[in-house]
Formats: sequence, structure tokens, C-alpha cells
Amino acid sequence: MYRTNTCGELRLADAGKVVTLAGWVQKNRRMGGMTFVDVRDRYGITQVVFNNDTDADLCEAASRLGREYVVQITGTVAERQSKNPNLPTGDIEIIARELKVLNRSEVPPFKIEDDTDGGDDLRMKYRYLDLRRSCVRRNLELRHRMAFEIRRYLDSLGFLEVETPVLIKSTPEGARDFVVPSRMNPGQFYALPQSPQTFKQLLMVSGFDRYFQIVKCFRDEDLRADRQPEFTQIDCEMSFVEQEDVLQVFEGLVKHIFKYVKDIDFTEPFPRMTWADAMKYYGSDKPDTRFGMRFVELKDLTVGKGFSVMDDAPYVGAICAPGCANYTRKQLDQLTEFVKRPQVGAKGMMWVKLEEDGSIKSSVGKFYTDDELRAWAERCEAKKGDLILILAGETMKTRKQLNELRLEMGSRLGLRDPQKFSCLWVVDFPLFEWDDETQRYYAMHHPFTSPNPDDIDKLETATGEVRATAYDMVVNGNELGGGSIRIHDSELQNKMFHLLGLSDEDAQYKFGFLMNAFKYGAPPHGGLAFGFDRFVSILAGLDSIRDTIAFPKNNSGRDVMIDAPSEIEQEQLDELSIALALKKEE
Amino acid sequence: MYRTNTCGELRLADAGKVVTLAGWVQKNRRMGGMTFVDVRDRYGITQVVFNNDTDADLCEAASRLGREYVVQITGTVAERQSKNPNLPTGDIEIIARELKVLNRSEVPPFKIEDDTDGGDDLRMKYRYLDLRRSCVRRNLELRHRMAFEIRRYLDSLGFLEVETPVLIKSTPEGARDFVVPSRMNPGQFYALPQSPQTFKQLLMVSGFDRYFQIVKCFRDEDLRADRQPEFTQIDCEMSFVEQEDVLQVFEGLVKHIFKYVKDIDFTEPFPRMTWADAMKYYGSDKPDTRFGMRFVELKDLTVGKGFSVMDDAPYVGAICAPGCANYTRKQLDQLTEFVKRPQVGAKGMMWVKLEEDGSIKSSVGKFYTDDELRAWAERCEAKKGDLILILAGETMKTRKQLNELRLEMGSRLGLRDPQKFSCLWVVDFPLFEWDDETQRYYAMHHPFTSPNPDDIDKLETATGEVRATAYDMVVNGNELGGGSIRIHDSELQNKMFHLLGLSDEDAQYKFGFLMNAFKYGAPPHGGLAFGFDRFVSILAGLDSIRDTIAFPKNNSGRDVMIDAPSEIEQEQLDELSIALALKKEE
Repeated sequence: MYRTNTCGELRLADAGKVVTLAGWVQKNRRMGGMTFVDVRDRYGITQVVFNNDTDADLCEAASRLGREYVVQITGTVAERQSKNPNLPTGDIEIIARELKVLNRSEVPPFKIEDDTDGGDDLRMKYRYLDLRRSCVRRNLELRHRMAFEIRRYLDSLGFLEVETPVLIKSTPEGARDFVVPSRMNPGQFYALPQSPQTFKQLLMVSGFDRYFQIVKCFRDEDLRADRQPEFTQIDCEMSFVEQEDVLQVFEGLVKHIFKYVKDIDFTEPFPRMTWADAMKYYGSDKPDTRFGMRFVELKDLTVGKGFSVMDDAPYVGAICAPGCANYTRKQLDQLTEFVKRPQVGAKGMMWVKLEEDGSIKSSVGKFYTDDELRAWAERCEAKKGDLILILAGETMKTRKQLNELRLEMGSRLGLRDPQKFSCLWVVDFPLFEWDDETQRYYAMHHPFTSPNPDDIDKLETATGEVRATAYDMVVNGNELGGGSIRIHDSELQNKMFHLLGLSDEDAQYKFGFLMNAFKYGAPPHGGLAFGFDRFVSILAGLDSIRDTIAFPKNNSGRDVMIDAPSEIEQEQLDELSIALALKKEE
Repeated sequence: MYRTNTCGELRLADAGKVVTLAGWVQKNRRMGGMTFVDVRDRYGITQVVFNNDTDADLCEAASRLGREYVVQITGTVAERQSKNPNLPTGDIEIIARELKVLNRSEVPPFKIEDDTDGGDDLRMKYRYLDLRRSCVRRNLELRHRMAFEIRRYLDSLGFLEVETPVLIKSTPEGARDFVVPSRMNPGQFYALPQSPQTFKQLLMVSGFDRYFQIVKCFRDEDLRADRQPEFTQIDCEMSFVEQEDVLQVFEGLVKHIFKYVKDIDFTEPFPRMTWADAMKYYGSDKPDTRFGMRFVELKDLTVGKGFSVMDDAPYVGAICAPGCANYTRKQLDQLTEFVKRPQVGAKGMMWVKLEEDGSIKSSVGKFYTDDELRAWAERCEAKKGDLILILAGETMKTRKQLNELRLEMGSRLGLRDPQKFSCLWVVDFPLFEWDDETQRYYAMHHPFTSPNPDDIDKLETATGEVRATAYDMVVNGNELGGGSIRIHDSELQNKMFHLLGLSDEDAQYKFGFLMNAFKYGAPPHGGLAFGFDRFVSILAGLDSIRDTIAFPKNNSGRDVMIDAPSEIEQEQLDELSIALALKKEE
């Protein structure tokens, strides 16, 4: 061992001990007859002192150390004269008597500090240096701790972690697969799994009863912000359960993680909200419930007063922004611009101000009397000093626009503290989604999702109204994950395929493999999957999942550090019985 | 929840309770006025009784249940009249009053019993049914338990589990890579990792200090028996360590697993053997030390007596098989046939018998006097009743042949009990291997392996004699894993590349990426990787790793259950900018 102690563990109680530390030079400075060197490792930073009077050569050598040199230092722990209360080791320093340079370093391309001077691209190229910064490393330490606690919790409940294969079969449904040519089976390809869905259901058929896996999954999509081609799921499945059982177990998991990783105790059950309510009150199936500002519907109060915007809109929705009646013209214009951005897509925004002096003002004051406006305010439970923001239009579209406006107002009002956590189950999702273009229903989750038992008689008569036994866990407006109870009855499954417009042959071709397994005694089962990268990012208070991943890829799916993907040798292509077929530049 | 209890937990103390069980029908039989049904789940089997006198319809329904039907049964726990001491639940039965068929099953293609009638191919095709057999499921339960304990041990020592990427860059050295065409980067490919070696070394450069990962790795090789294209490694790396530190930590890991998973306490340190001794005494770098029969060299005692086989051979080696002097002519002929098999490759075998009556017999008695033979026997420490088996020839070849013979004798004598465990470190591996064909040295492990510090002055003068700081953990004659201390000094690394015949340009092309990272302060580091599949198979007492894997592939790399790999759509190929280039049948 090159050290007796880490750079994070020595305290005043260790004074007098002779110790050896090893680590990186964070910085060194000469002051008077002394050289001070801050030595850093994963565990912390310790100050080392070299005294010119004691050993001039050593002191001189220490002053010549470069940033990020790897050093080994032996010396005596001593109480520090000017203590540093910001460092756990700030009460002590090491009076050095030996110094060995274990390795030199070129000057790094950016500073290894939380507040670095390195831009995004540079830090990604030198990710191995970026990872030295403690603010980045802490995210990966958190990730480790979370994975460990997830396993501890699930193991304690009898879940078995089973590794499912990575080289599987391409499925024609869903997002694009990454594929892998098989050298031994020329012309054939493996696919990388988008999720272990099929395999976990097979494990239930196998009687494994309780399965989980923290597992890499792959999706070849055009990467929007905050997607990665490889991502990690906490994938779980249970047999002989109903929805309530699954919710209990995984609400317990989330609470366990908050407790043992963040020391946050959630003593109350997580609220549950139907999908219909989530859309009605938040315009989103993943509402951010850290703050209120629920939607209020005003259609009935706004209609018939000769204002065509309101009259023509099937939906009028409002949110009440507390204490914002003092918003200036400019601020209101900014909000109008915000909702008119193409990403939001509203045509305009209306407002009503309840001034502190009791008067009322509105952008639509010429169409409505003060009393009429006060009726709106009353329904919104607005108080003096509040600002009501109103959008009108087609129901679902307007709700989504109002959702964006609500989130924007929440951010402006500082109501979205990343260190405050609000968890929620969204339940009773619709089973089907109607697609106007192809004029047919699609499964909202996947075709194995069980309908709500109470709605089975509506399957053929009111297909669009049938609720699924499906649920999502939402934290701070992020979908942490979700799942469903699966269909285990083959008659019901056939009916589902039929409703989804799949012929028996199609169903057999696409899902035959799982259907065959189900012939041999499939138990009732259900489960869920959490996005692990997202889970970590929420607990770390990060906006992006990228910094929860040690070596992430950029938006073109490239790892700029190792420069992958890359061209391969012709010999490799030949062995795989494939050839390049590049399109000509147009 | 469909049950109040599992099929494995009810005991006599539960008698009188009303319970609901759910599971699969293992078997049912009608006896007198009763129907007995054995209900199985992951946790056990419970006997359920239906009484014709109480409810004739229910009893009739129970008798019509098919094998592997999924049922839910409610009834009262009662003491059994004829107890079954082989079942943990054998003291009780359930007097049923409700029966619900949750799902039916077709007749399975083989019996779901430990001693099944299903052949290998059939069981692989219906792997989801094979996994229902408790002897198969137990291996995966063991695998889960081992993974959990590995993580618990490493976490307790401050190791961080960090996920490294699966979509990486193809490297031109080593075994064949599986590659993944990139749709977003036409003409370019990712590779699947053969190991996270580069990334774990980068994590050391990043100051992560202690890293591990239980991780899938991929190798596109022609599959010999007991290889899988995807396999799982326990991959580990530590900074600021020397070989001794690594050995201590991972010997601790192996002991922890044996203790907490198998309840076996290894109190003594594991023996260590140099590679040179392993070859000299066992003819193998992974000796099975569950039994003795070490090699004895007889060259000096056999030379110069006019027997050309001995005279011409640079090496004569013997093993002493205790109590085998009574081997018949036929048995000895079998052994001779064994060593002459092409897989072993010896030209013949000689033997000396020390008969119980004190006389001595030998296949080469006409060349040697009894006294000469007794001198051999003495060196072999042979006793009355023992049999000495002798091979002669070129040193390394003959040692390998004698190794095969030793293992065969060990098996014949029942000395290789799969439930007895013998662990060993093999150390001081050679750094280089000479290749006659290409007339150059190759790195025995990989080019980053550090030479033994004592041998650095021999690097250029006696290259072949230089020992590596590399080590293997061997259990029962299986290489469980191994690793090395890595070179962190760039001058030494350059010298290594030079000795391996790599030009600066070659080195930069092949390893430049890691070399560049090493410029920024690489700490001294080292580590190791264990084969997890093999680790599980050893503890499970299995010959093959296949049954430690939930969904394994066959020797052609096929998953016969899901029928992968398979052809993909032309559209997928087009999107990936590749085409098939199948060779014509010849």
C-alpha cells in the first residue's frame, strides 16, 4: 500500500501520528519559508507543509510540483494554526519529511475544481479528468449508493436478480433496435434489448415469483436532449399480485432510497391521482406536485359575452400565480411570448390582476365586467395581489400549453426546489390511444397491459374509455418509471390483439414466442421499471441524466472521449458477411 | 395478493389457520374418497386435500386438474397423518374448501422434476419450463445470493460500482469484437466490450480509487465447450496498491462468499504457488489442489540404462497413484489409451507397481533392476500397494500430458469432490510468451502488465525470464480469475511496447487513447477480474457454466428458445447503411 491514510480521514485526534498519504496535487504555494501543498484523493483534501528551515531541498522540490502530479508524502499530523472550517480535515496539516513524485502530469486542459473553466465539449473529451472533480464524482458515488440500497431492499423482500441476455432477437414493434451481425450465423443479426420485458414475463412463467434487475437497455433513437442510446433500468416483476401489491412494494422502494440515501423520511402514503385528474388539473401525466397552481376551468363563466376567443374555444383554463399582480407590462409580455413559442404553441395569453388595493384589471377587461372577472377570481381562489393567467383553445392542446405556463411560473416563483421532493402515483391510464392518421387504436403502454377489471365490458363498446391497470411513479414532474398488471388470460389477450387490429397471424409473428410460453401455465403477474439514470439525477438535483453516467454519449450518439463509433477493418466486415452501403451525398 | 402464504412456509405450528395458496399443480391423485394435489411455487411444495364427503364437486374438479395448471386454493392447515420427512412442509396439508383455476396449461413437453425426461435440446427450447425445475432454479438463486454478497463485501471496503459503456470502440487486438452499426454515424460501428479494462484504468486516472462492476462482456469466438458469447465478469481495480494489497482484498472476497453463501470458513491464508512451481508439480497454471499426486522428476534416475525412450527424453515425470497397484492389465491399457488420445497426445505410458507383498513390477522392468525401480519409488514416496505412472518427452508437452493423466486418476480415485473446495493463488507468471511462428514475444496477459520490480534489469537481457506482477485465483483446477499490477510509468510502458515489437506509431494507434490519459497523473494501480459464471458453477458444483445462466446460448451462439439471431428487415439494413454480403455456397 502506498499510504497509511486517505486524504479525507485525518482529524485533530490524529495529531502526532506519522502518516503516509498519496494523491494528486490540487495546488501548491510558497509563503515565507514554507511550501503548502493541498493533496487530493477521492476521500478529501489534506494540507501538507514543507518547511524551508528543516529541509530546504524538500521544500524547494515541493514548490516545483505541478498541478495534478501524483505524490506520496510521509510526515507528522499536526494541529493547524489557521484552521479551515470548510474542510473536514481543516483542523490539521501534515508536516512533511518525505516526498516522492509517483507520476507527473501535463497541465490539464481545464481546472479540476467544482467551478471549472472547462466548457462542456472539452470536459467530455477529457471525461477522465472531468470525473476528478468532486461535484461530478459525487453523482457517481450517489449512483453506487442508490444501486446498493435498491438491491438491499429488493433482496430483503425475496426478489431475485436475474441477468437476462443482451444478445436477443429484433422485434418489429416499438423504437429502433441496435443490431449485431452474427459471424457464426451469416445474414442473421442479434438485437440489443430495449427492455427485458419479454424475459421478465418468461421468468414469471418459470415461477421465479419475484424478479428484478438493474440492467442496461438500448434504443436507437434520434437523441433528444437528455436521452442516451444506452441507459439503465431498474426492472421488476412479481407473480400472484394485483396493482395494489405492486404499488405498495415499489412505493416502499422509493421511500427506502430516500431514507437510506438522502435521510428523508416519507411517513405518509404517496398521493395517487388518476390520469384523468392529472390531465384536468395539471395538463400532464407527470405533474410537478412540489407546488399548487392547479388548473381552474372557466369556460362556463367566459362564454356568451361576445368575446369570440372564449366563445369559440371548447376549453378555457386558468392558473393563479400568487403575489404576481405586480407583474409589469414587460413581464406579462414575456409570458405571452413564452406561450407563443413554437414549443408551446398557444395563440395568446389572457390575464386578470387582483390589485392589492382591491381593484381588478384584465387584458380582456373590455369584454367582461369587474363582477364577471371577480367570479373568475373567486373560482380560482385568488387573493389580493394574485395574478390569473388564462389560455383558451382545444382541450388537450390547451391543457398542455397551460402545463408549460404553470411550470414556467413555478420556476419563476422559486417553487421547484431540486432539494424538495414530491412523489406521486398516476393511475388509471387509458388502455388505448387513438391515432387519427392510421385511424386505429394503439396500446398506450404495450399490448400485454391488462384492462381495469371494471372496464372489461367496455372493451368493444367504448374502447377509448377503457382504463388500463397501469401506473406511473412521478417525482417532481419527472416520470421515474411505470408499469402494469399483465394479461395472463389468453382469451383476453386475443381480444386485445383483435382490438389493436392484429390478425392471428400477425400476433403469432410478433408475439408468438411469448404467447406459446403462456400456454404452459402463466401466473397472474405485473411489474414495473424505473429509469435508474433519471432516479439518480432527481436525487442529485441535476437537470440532466448525463452527469449521472460515468462515460456518456453526446447527442449524435458519440463517445467523444474514445471516439466511438468508428470505422472497422474490411476484414471484420467480410467475416460478418456484411458490406457498407453508404448513401451518396446529395 | 392472490395468496396469504407461499407453498414453502407452512409448518405444524400453523395448524388451524385458514390460508390461501397459489401455484402450479405438481401432481394430483385420487385415493379413496380424497383427491390429493401437490401445489408448487418457488418456495416449496404443499399438499392439498379435497374430500369427496365434504364437497364432491370440488373433489371432482381437483381430480381433473392437469399438470402445471395454475391454481389458487383456500383451506385450513391441518396436521398430516402420514408425514413426509423429505419436505419442509411435510408435516402439514391443506384441507381445501375453495379452488380456482387461474390458468390452464397444455401438457408440458417434459416433466418438471429434478430427474426430468427432457433431453438437453428440448429443455433449452422450452427453457422457461426448464427453469421451473428446482435444481435449475437453485443455481440462479445461488447466483443472486453470490452477486449480492460480492457487492456487500466490496461496498464495505469502499469500492464503488461504476457502470462502464456497452457501446464502445472496436480494438484491433485480442479476440474478435461483436460490432454494432451506427445509424446516426453511417459507415461506423460500435463494439461490445470484451472487458472494461480500458475504462477501469481510466477510472483510476480519474481518482476513483476503488472500482468494481459485475458486468456483461462479449467475445465473438468459435465457442468451445463451456464458452458463451456473452458472459459476466466481476471486474475490479484499485489505486495506490501493490500486488499484496490486491491479493489480500480478493482473497477476502472469496472467503466472504464461501462463508456467507456456503457456510464454509477458510481460516488459513490461501496457498500461493509460483507459475514455475505450478508447471513443475502439476503441469498446469491452474492445478487442481484438492488432491496431491504432485509430479516427481525421474530423468536423472532413468538415464543411461540403455532405454532410448528415457535417454532421448529431456523430461521424465511420474505421479504416484495411491493404492492402485492392483490395477489390471485392462485398466492400465485404458490409461495408456487415455494418454495416447489426440487431445492428450502422449506416445505411451510406463508404470511401476509396488505390490502389497513387497515385490515390484514394471512395464519397463527389462531395462531396469528392481533396485533402480525402488529408487524411483522412493523418490515418489510410494508405499506398498501404490502405482507409479510415468511419461517421458519434451518438457512442457509432457508436463501437460501428465497433468491430464493426474486429473484422470484424481477423478477415478474420487478425489475431485465438487463439494470440497481448494483455493490457490498462482503468482509470478512470465511477462512474455515467445511465439515461434512470428518469432517475437507477446504479452502473456496484456501490454499494461507491470514487470516484477526485481526483474526490470532483465527486460532487455533476459526478456523471456522476466516475471510479471500478475496473479490468478485457482479453485479446484479452474481459473476463477486473475489480474495484475499495471504499468503507470510512461517510460517503462514505452519500453514494453518496444519489446513487443510495437513502433511508437503502432502503440499510439492501438493504445493512444489510454496513453494520453496517462499523461495527466496516473496513479499506481492494479486489479483483477473474476469470471462470475464460473464462480457460480464452482459453488454450485456444476461442470458447465451454462446452467448458471438463465437464458444461455448454444455452441453456435444461438438462443434456441427465442430463435436468435434472426434475419432483419431490408428497411433496417438500409437505415444502418449496410448490406448483406453472403458468401456463395461452395
